Amino acid sequence: MEEFDQLVADVFSRRCTSRTVLETLTGRWAILALVALHEGPYRFNALRRRVDGVSEKMLSQTLHALERDGMVLRVAEPSIPPRVEYSLTPLGREAAERLIPLIEWVEERMPQVASAREEYASR
Amino acid sequence: MEEFDQLVADVFSRRCTSRTVLETLTGRWAILALVALHEGPYRFNALRRRVDGVSEKMLSQTLHALERDGMVLRVAEPSIPPRVEYSLTPLGREAAERLIPLIEWVEERMPQVASAREEYASR
Repeated sequence: MEEFDQLVADVFSRRCTSRTVLETLTGRWAILALVALHEGPYRFNALRRRVDGVSEKMLSQTLHALERDGMVLRVAEPSIPPRVEYSLTPLGREAAERLIPLIEWVEERMPQVASAREEYASR
Repeated sequence: MEEFDQLVADVFSRRCTSRTVLETLTGRWAILALVALHEGPYRFNALRRRVDGVSEKMLSQTLHALERDGMVLRVAEPSIPPRVEYSLTPLGREAAERLIPLIEWVEERMPQVASAREEYASR
């Protein structure tokens, strides 16, 4: 895609493709799937247990979108039944490395957020 | 909220409140609003122009959720017409500082994502 080498991507511009990439990465389940896969490869059902609460359909859609964007690798071994394993590509690993600090920060800051919510509710 | 001082937050657990905070922060428009407000305070309409493509309703909902979670401060000056300004709290600033590297990485990596999409489409 030569045009991307010359254009500057800008997520603030509504027509820039980079916004769709940001939205794929930060979707409800994509963040958790990427961060889980940063721990190591997972088979579908194990990943589904790790990403507590995700439906089979939503996890499948999430993994397809991440595979399309070059973040996740899907490898099907020719066994019976077929064994399908998901792992991060180098690009997906870079993405996960930028999502982990965000998740850790959210978990760490929960007391402050909870206080803010209490204060907001009591106004 | 004393229970948060004793419990460990875990976004992977479906019932953990931290997941709702992560989802507020990484919503379609919240990321862009937080990163824009990191540039400085904005009035509503100026922020709406900056976050290209957001509707009045969605920006308003986004700002309310961020205000409730203690990330955004809404200050209404007693003028006619009322002048309402939005800015980041220290907590919101911390959040924005973890979102900016993600956005910059997405913008920088667009050529690789575009190649991955082309390859995926041509399979």
